[in-house]
Parts: sequence; structure tokens; C-alpha cells
Amino acid sequence: MRIFNFSAGPAVLPEDVLRTAASEMLDWRASGMSVMEMSHRGKEFISIHEKALADLRELLAIPPNYKVLFLQGGAIAENAVVPMNLLGARTSADYVNTGEWSKKSIKEAKKYCAVNVAASAEDRSFTYVPAQATWKTSRDAAYVHVCTNETIGGVEYHWTPDTGDVPLVADMSSHILSRAVDVAKYGVIYAGAQKNMGPAGLTVVIVRDDLLDRALPITPSAFHWKEQAESDSMLNTPATYSIYVAGLVFEWLKARGGIAAIERANIAKAALLYDYLDRTEFYRNPVQREDRSRMNVPFKLRDESLDEAFLKGAKERGMVQLKGHRVVGGMRASIYNAMPVEGVRTLVDYMQEFEQRHG
Amino acid sequence: MRIFNFSAGPAVLPEDVLRTAASEMLDWRASGMSVMEMSHRGKEFISIHEKALADLRELLAIPPNYKVLFLQGGAIAENAVVPMNLLGARTSADYVNTGEWSKKSIKEAKKYCAVNVAASAEDRSFTYVPAQATWKTSRDAAYVHVCTNETIGGVEYHWTPDTGDVPLVADMSSHILSRAVDVAKYGVIYAGAQKNMGPAGLTVVIVRDDLLDRALPITPSAFHWKEQAESDSMLNTPATYSIYVAGLVFEWLKARGGIAAIERANIAKAALLYDYLDRTEFYRNPVQREDRSRMNVPFKLRDESLDEAFLKGAKERGMVQLKGHRVVGGMRASIYNAMPVEGVRTLVDYMQEFEQRHG
Repeated sequence: MRIFNFSAGPAVLPEDVLRTAASEMLDWRASGMSVMEMSHRGKEFISIHEKALADLRELLAIPPNYKVLFLQGGAIAENAVVPMNLLGARTSADYVNTGEWSKKSIKEAKKYCAVNVAASAEDRSFTYVPAQATWKTSRDAAYVHVCTNETIGGVEYHWTPDTGDVPLVADMSSHILSRAVDVAKYGVIYAGAQKNMGPAGLTVVIVRDDLLDRALPITPSAFHWKEQAESDSMLNTPATYSIYVAGLVFEWLKARGGIAAIERANIAKAALLYDYLDRTEFYRNPVQREDRSRMNVPFKLRDESLDEAFLKGAKERGMVQLKGHRVVGGMRASIYNAMPVEGVRTLVDYMQEFEQRHG
Repeated sequence: MRIFNFSAGPAVLPEDVLRTAASEMLDWRASGMSVMEMSHRGKEFISIHEKALADLRELLAIPPNYKVLFLQGGAIAENAVVPMNLLGARTSADYVNTGEWSKKSIKEAKKYCAVNVAASAEDRSFTYVPAQATWKTSRDAAYVHVCTNETIGGVEYHWTPDTGDVPLVADMSSHILSRAVDVAKYGVIYAGAQKNMGPAGLTVVIVRDDLLDRALPITPSAFHWKEQAESDSMLNTPATYSIYVAGLVFEWLKARGGIAAIERANIAKAALLYDYLDRTEFYRNPVQREDRSRMNVPFKLRDESLDEAFLKGAKERGMVQLKGHRVVGGMRASIYNAMPVEGVRTLVDYMQEFEQRHG
């Protein structure tokens, strides 16, 4: 029996995708091989790779002057890989600090350059996105880095920064493919796959062509965007099976109506939870209303001594991974694309029931 | 119908492993989740991770003063990651050049340090392993790097170098787990999983404790061995599904009798092919007899105009990926642990039949 899995990542995948993966495990389309066993340079896998790339390009409407790379190491590797690839002759970069993932990016970037924190939401416990009017960007920054959805704090940009000629770099790991995005406003978008795209081990990098000439000499070949772009992401053996499953997720998204349809579904799912949170005093979400994440919904019970009972009851009803991140405590419901609306309804019903019993 | 897949990697996996993975795809052991969907910090995945680690330690008899890390990026990433982690205050390293993979390691290392090529087999087209008596190592090298099985050239070390106090670092990607290895003679062993361990996207690093204090400040956290060792390889989200499948491969190996048994099987499989190659003039393997790889067997048809016909006939008989690497041409049969002896027999039978028809 399948459960409702609210994990922040790796996270729930569409059941249809898993069924296809299971049925093709021993023999992909009469090839006599599992996708795991295919040479990455064989025609079978190349067809899988190209289809996944084309579908991702279509879903996100990625302009032709952007390269899409399928790399490894997740966002934490990219935190180092971004400055390595973008600093060129410059020695500093601007970062906006909206929470735990921004902090990780900043810490790592400091290994390679001076970091100017252009704005920070630390003054209010990372419960909002600083308005761009308050940003103190520097003139000589190699780029401006943002995390457009903070998985832990549950804070999301619902607007696109305008950084002029300075390339805007975004870690979109935990909300990529959940909503429309105007890729042309970004220099680089990167995301680990394990939240909204597929299995851990795949990292997607979307980079504008003119930014491919700035890599530092210390950039490892496996993470050198230009070299990888020239090798169709096959300079090293890519995470072939993760790419295959991500490709199945892309097909699933397209069959459901693409980004416009999934965005409507995500708005509805998030509203179910936030509307209830706004009606009760028993639970609370600390995030400024206009900056709330549609993907990650942290909330706390007013009486934290009930946390364990809440989690136990949830598990008995087939809902797992609702415990909040240790940094913020409380609960967190991650409701990615693949979480069915029934999962969110079951959760809200349970929250109400729990409130009635303990409120 | 399954075929015989002689790919050099990603490569054939045990059919039993694929059957288990397929059957557990939607619901791992009544958890209600696919392994792909599990939080890497949940108790289910942690149990999978720990079992895989313990089984790998048992299979390779890894001494307790070594850490085993499950990272990402493959051997090509490690080519940069090794000097980053091992140089410390030193500025040079020794490399032995036995072929294409050694060359890649050397090229990458030069980004971080001076490389002394202590020995090279280039003088005879990389068809042998230079005897240690001929190595010109340097006194101040941070380490000595070898590639103990050259996947493309089909050259394997059947002895262990002795580098005294200088740490010996080995890329074992294409023969790890195929034979017994005295881990204590190495400072670091690394290997991409996609040849003898599991799906692409997982990289195993085995590192002696006393070498964990030498990382350069530019080492990305995701590839910083000490930080990863302290985080149980979870500083970034690991390639969870690849670890799971590798764990199934480790269980399969143990059930078959472990390394001693698989080594006997590998010796027998390789002998089938090499014995025939030594009896015919129609095909030839260029590698010095005592340095021939048990895993990757390159061979050429005397008459290269027959190559296409050979590959076509092989495919008709259910054998694929026999075309040699473009750098050396001809054919290559990769006969990893998971290649059944029937696959090698079918190949040798076909080679004989083809010789009779065209010889």
C-alpha cells in the first residue's frame, strides 16, 4: 500500500512513473537491457537523454540561447561550481540571504571569492523575501545569487528580481517545474532533481551561452559548464537512470497539461493548507503571507508538547515525513507536484481532527 | 528477452538484482514508498545505506582505519577531487601512465599541482604495466596515482605497487569487486559504480583516516572527504537509489560466495576468451600476457574490413556493445562480474564460427 509521503526530498514521485520504471526494469522497450545497464553512448540511452532534454526545454520554455546540462552532486556541489564557473576575472559576488539554503551557498562561495550579502531576512528569522528596493548590490559583482524557494523556511519568491546586466543566478531546487518561470531573466538556474524532478543524483543546470567563458582554471572538468555543454553532459558518465526517471516525470507533467496545469494544481493544494492555517490558532505558519512557499509548508503546533502525538497519529493515517527540519522545529508538509490533492486533504482533515481533540 | 551486454559501463547487472529492484519499486518492504522517494535521513534509507556500507566493507575486507564514502561525479570528478583532498602543503604528485584513464587523471591533476609521470607505457601503445623497478618517483610527491585497470586498453595490474610512506592512490573503477585486494596497501581507492557495482551516479571512495587532513581550501564541501566522512556521506543528498541498487549487488555477491568465488569465476571467464585469442591468428589481443585485464578484453580482427559484419552477426545472436573504444578501434568485450559465463561462451562460439566462415 502506498502512503502519503511529505518528505522535503528525496520526495514522492508520480505513481505512474514508478509503475513504468518497474515494468521496464529488465527490458526497456525490447532492447533486452535495463536502462541502468545501457552504455551512455549507445543509441538507446542517447534517445532517452535527448527526449528528457527536449521535454524539459518545452516544459520550461527555455530559450535557444541557453544550454541545459545534466550533472551530478546536487545544489550543494553547485554552491561551489557556480562561483568556479562564473567568477572569471572578478573577485566578488552578491548573495541574497533568505534562509538555510542561502546560507549554505554563501558559506561555500566564500572559498572562491568575496561575498557581499546584498540583503538578508535574518532580522525576522527568515520569514520573508527582502524587497528588491532594499538590496545593496555591488557594482563589480560577478553575479547575484538567490534561492527562489527555501525548502526549510518555506519562503518563496513570487516575483523575479531584476539585476540588470549582472547575471541572476537562482537555486530553484525545491520549486523548479512547479510554476511558470521566465528563464530569460536568469543567467543561470540550477536544481537538484530530488524534489520535483526525479531521483537524487541528478543536477540540472540551465546556463545562458554568453556565461560559458568565465570558468576559473581550478574548475573540475566534470563540473565545467562549457566543457560539459560541448560534450552534451557526457564528459563524465551521467547519472543515466536518474535522467531516465526524470524523463518519465517530464512526460507525466506534459500529459497532465504542462506547467500551467500543474501550477494551478499547486496553487489549489497550497491554498487548502494555508487557508486552514489562517483560520486556526492551534497551528501557525510564520511566513509573511505574500512570500509563502507553495511547495514547503512549515507549521508549528501552539503546544509543542503535542508534536509527537501529532506525528504518531499522522503515521497511523498513512502520512509520513511531516517532522520539520531540525533548524526550525515543528512540522513541515512538502507538497511537490507529485503529491496528490488527496494527500493534502487527508492532512488538513487530520489537522482539524487533531485540533478538535486537543484544542 | 534479455541479451548479452558487453558494454564497458554502464554495464550488465545481475538479473536477480533487477528483479528485486522492479518488485520493490512501488513499495519497499511495506514502507509504502519507493526507495527513490525516501528521505535520505529517514530510518528506511539509513538502514539501506548502512547495510550497503557494511556489505562493501565485508566484501573487500576494508580495515577499520579506512572511511568508505558514497559520493557522486564518477572517476572523472575524482580526478580533480583526489589532488584537492591530498595535496596539503605539497605541490606535486606522481602518476603512472598506463593508458587513457591515466591520461585523463594526469590532465586533470595538472590544474592543481605539478605532475611527475613516474612511468609510462606509451612507448608500446599502452599494452603493458611498467614494472615498478622502472618507476622514477619523486621524493616530495603528495601521493602516487595508478589506474589499476585500464578499461579502454584492457591492461590490469596483477600486483600491488609498494610506494613506502607515500600514499598509493588507485582508480579501480573497472575492476573493483572483481578480485581480492589488499586495501591496507593503498591510501585511497576510488571507483565509479557503473561497471562492477551498480548504476552510474555513485562513486565509492575508500580513504585511510590519516589522509583526511590534507584538503586544499578550494575543495568543494560535497567532495571534501573529511567533511563527508564526518557526515556519513550525507553532507549533500547522496545518490540514494544508486546506493540501494549497489547494495543489492553487494548482497548478490555475498550470496554467490563473495570475492573469492567471483574471482574464480572471473579467471575462468577471462581464460575462455584469452585461450581462444592465443590459439587463433584471425583475432589478436595486443596486451602483454601477464598484464591482461580480466574485465575488459580488447581484440582486433586481422582483417578490419570485417568489423561491421562481425558486429552485425553478434547482434543477431543477442550480443551487443562489442565495438571497441574509438581510441583503439577493433572490438572489446567487457566481462564484468554480472556477465554470465554463458555470455562469454556464446561470444567465443560465435568468434570461432565467424573465423571459420571468413578465415
